[in-house]
Amino acid sequence: MKIDLNCDLGESFGVYALGNDEMIMDYVTSVNIACGCHAGDPEIMEKTVELAIKKGVSIGAHPGYPDLQGFGRRDMAMSKEALRASMIYQISALKGFVEIKGGKLQHVKPHGALYNLAAKDYEVARVIAQAIYDIDPSIIFMGLADSEMIRAGNDVGLKVAREVFADRRYTKDKNLVPRNLKGAVIEDVSDSINQCLSIISKHELIDYEGNKLILEGDSICIHGDNAHGIELVSRLRETLKNQSIKIQSLEV
Amino acid sequence: MKIDLNCDLGESFGVYALGNDEMIMDYVTSVNIACGCHAGDPEIMEKTVELAIKKGVSIGAHPGYPDLQGFGRRDMAMSKEALRASMIYQISALKGFVEIKGGKLQHVKPHGALYNLAAKDYEVARVIAQAIYDIDPSIIFMGLADSEMIRAGNDVGLKVAREVFADRRYTKDKNLVPRNLKGAVIEDVSDSINQCLSIISKHELIDYEGNKLILEGDSICIHGDNAHGIELVSRLRETLKNQSIKIQSLEV
Amino acid sequence: MKIDLNCDLGESFGVYALGNDEMIMDYVTSVNIACGCHAGDPEIMEKTVELAIKKGVSIGAHPGYPDLQGFGRRDMAMSKEALRASMIYQISALKGFVEIKGGKLQHVKPHGALYNLAAKDYEVARVIAQAIYDIDPSIIFMGLADSEMIRAGNDVGLKVAREVFADRRYTKDKNLVPRNLKGAVIEDVSDSINQCLSIISKHELIDYEGNKLILEGDSICIHGDNAHGIELVSRLRETLKNQSIKIQSLEV
Amino acid sequence: MKIDLNCDLGESFGVYALGNDEMIMDYVTSVNIACGCHAGDPEIMEKTVELAIKKGVSIGAHPGYPDLQGFGRRDMAMSKEALRASMIYQISALKGFVEIKGGKLQHVKPHGALYNLAAKDYEVARVIAQAIYDIDPSIIFMGLADSEMIRAGNDVGLKVAREVFADRRYTKDKNLVPRNLKGAVIEDVSDSINQCLSIISKHELIDYEGNKLILEGDSICIHGDNAHGIELVSRLRETLKNQSIKIQSLEV
Repeated sequence: MKIDLNCDLGESFGVYALGNDEMIMDYVTSVNIACGCHAGDPEIMEKTVELAIKKGVSIGAHPGYPDLQGFGRRDMAMSKEALRASMIYQISALKGFVEIKGGKLQHVKPHGALYNLAAKDYEVARVIAQAIYDIDPSIIFMGLADSEMIRAGNDVGLKVAREVFADRRYTKDKNLVPRNLKGAVIEDVSDSINQCLSIISKHELIDYEGNKLILEGDSICIHGDNAHGIELVSRLRETLKNQSIKIQSLEV
Repeated sequence: MKIDLNCDLGESFGVYALGNDEMIMDYVTSVNIACGCHAGDPEIMEKTVELAIKKGVSIGAHPGYPDLQGFGRRDMAMSKEALRASMIYQISALKGFVEIKGGKLQHVKPHGALYNLAAKDYEVARVIAQAIYDIDPSIIFMGLADSEMIRAGNDVGLKVAREVFADRRYTKDKNLVPRNLKGAVIEDVSDSINQCLSIISKHELIDYEGNKLILEGDSICIHGDNAHGIELVSRLRETLKNQSIKIQSLEV
Repeated sequence: MKIDLNCDLGESFGVYALGNDEMIMDYVTSVNIACGCHAGDPEIMEKTVELAIKKGVSIGAHPGYPDLQGFGRRDMAMSKEALRASMIYQISALKGFVEIKGGKLQHVKPHGALYNLAAKDYEVARVIAQAIYDIDPSIIFMGLADSEMIRAGNDVGLKVAREVFADRRYTKDKNLVPRNLKGAVIEDVSDSINQCLSIISKHELIDYEGNKLILEGDSICIHGDNAHGIELVSRLRETLKNQSIKIQSLEV
Repeated sequence: MKIDLNCDLGESFGVYALGNDEMIMDYVTSVNIACGCHAGDPEIMEKTVELAIKKGVSIGAHPGYPDLQGFGRRDMAMSKEALRASMIYQISALKGFVEIKGGKLQHVKPHGALYNLAAKDYEVARVIAQAIYDIDPSIIFMGLADSEMIRAGNDVGLKVAREVFADRRYTKDKNLVPRNLKGAVIEDVSDSINQCLSIISKHELIDYEGNKLILEGDSICIHGDNAHGIELVSRLRETLKNQSIKIQSLEV
């Protein structure tokens, strides 16, 4: 048994610092680096890629809506043509930095509002998947487990990575319970770790309504921008090791 | 004897249209496509690359300062690190579109205020040249003939393309006479054509002060956004053919 | 009987020119000037305000979503707080230019996707209306006749201007027939003029399904960016004069 | 004897937080609020203005170059027309928020690279001064003591506020010693306080070369984004009170 741990980072911009990128890289196996549209800028991208390669973590592009003020968290009605072109633009730019440093772009994971939309909307997911495929068919498409992103990735011929969440409750439809609902976020670290173990070893979890839900995952989303996230990933890593579950990036 | 004809294009943005890209592509052999920072956007980039490949013209990246409002024509004091990263970002993004369409990025030519600075400032030119080299050492660095760009490109180990101007007068130092000076622009089409012929066949021209100036060039800059430019390039092509001077892109 | 004729303009950006602002100002009585977020920039704003004052047309702010690439035509999920602040920002900036030139801001008309949303969504319309009121309660809120904008403007205590369209068909709910439907746009100039006359003098028109629809209007939207629009407004003005209908701005 | 203490703030953007605005407002009498171009966004502006009014500190606009990525710290070659329009845009937008909350815009202080340029370049300082005057001649122009900003403000007919620095050494020409030179920043808090006292009570200080320099000031620049700045302003306030020097904003 094995699992990848991924984290969004490279989200600083100009003088604006965000996250503890250097520290969290010691805990995860894959990183999703912002591509200069919803967050990040070229200089941040180059430094973050350099750091990821030095730390030996696998690199993914983390493209989002071109909306820095909204951090890519606001829905934007982009046409399919504009979305496709924006994906190619962002992913290719990050890929450029990765290859200059001697690395290889492992995966692409959409960010924020685009991630949420692509999880539910097959057409949008398909546009993203096709853009990735057109850039390089060996890039892995990381998306919400059992969502339209996974279906679109498979249909297009990409390898996919099914992302699961340690600290979020699921609906019976395998969506995340919206954050504004009570109990959407799992506050207790032990509960989070148990959810992870259950997904990895039994391919199931207990959903928001208390029922068993079948769910497989290849990568667990880690948040590195707060103390809680660091505690969670530390204890999760320890537990996984004790259970002889390998922590390794997607391509290994 | 041979010469390349190049034109800046792909400079539209969103609903804002600029230039007659489709038409001018019938007259030139290389195009310099804006990369979404001083002009252009991802959708425009994809369409322009597609058109260039359909028309069989060679493609170059045309990166500039990240200043859409100023169209990259205003000096901006970017640090070397920021400039390097911006170059990698812009060039890699355009290269992504080119490779998806089955093409190869032939060259890079800096835009506007960055071009002017890099022509005079070796350190800046060197940063650009190194960024290009790091992306792919087979990309050609196009810059003002006999300028610091050419020196930096050679030093870094890049192939270079020396750009010359049909309709601009030169100082004795091989710089362009600033546009605000009287006589800086050659208004008469025949005079422009004669300057081109003189550079190509004799490697010399008559400078602003009336003296002979030694200058070699690999590519002539064409402006496609006005009727005068179209007339000039039409007559230039005819003249070149009559003189048995081959019009072909840099890599042929 | 009287009517205002309004036109969106000041939509150029940097080197990117859009519209025939100077010409269309001879035909209309009110202009809606872009505020630097979906279109326009500070320099364009100052020049456009100057021109409007010289030509004697009344000035309105035309705020839109902060999305230059999409020209404010793409839905964006702004929070109420962000929308309110963006409205205050844009309107105050334009008001600054108007007052420097000795004018007074007559009205505010939302642009593009924001206009369409505010026509249907009372809460959004209310946020805009309240922002206008907070800036200056004597500013007129211009919005689609009989839409939520008019209701919200009235509720907040603003004067309102009901906008009607010469060249668009209406649904029975007093919305515009979406442009992608056949017959949504009235191609024939005489038909457009008849629709205007019917609204002004009889407060009614024939809707998309052929039925009579009650509709009052204070201002007709004119498009100045194409030859058809100029022909329409020329003939409309002539007809209105012949019918002794006064063409005058809202505040007169 | 009296003195104003001012601080730059409102420099957050979207999700990106910067500074301890709420805390520093307890120590200063005037605040310079970013206007959405080099930092800040409309929502941040509204919240910061609200907070300043609640805390009873006087409000100034802090306009800068339209360069969020460079935080307004990079020189940008804006034309006089573009600079003027940008100043009117930014100042009017902030003034809108201030007036909605029932306040009055007390002053304008340029930011970053623009401040540094306007300190030395009379033409640039004059453009800014004229823009302020055109908006409202009762607004105070705050700039480096004895610099071109003060001269331009006086020439245009504005009230001026001469800014001095507690923790920076001066050249004999009354400029700040560039930060990259050793000893440019006064590290010792007592030394900083002594420099302030000397300027306020004796209108002189000891310059970088150890000589006496005549300098008067109306406002001391405080940095609120680090612990050192908070310690400095705390001890400075205590010392000023002990010396019976009134700490009050410019307009009192």
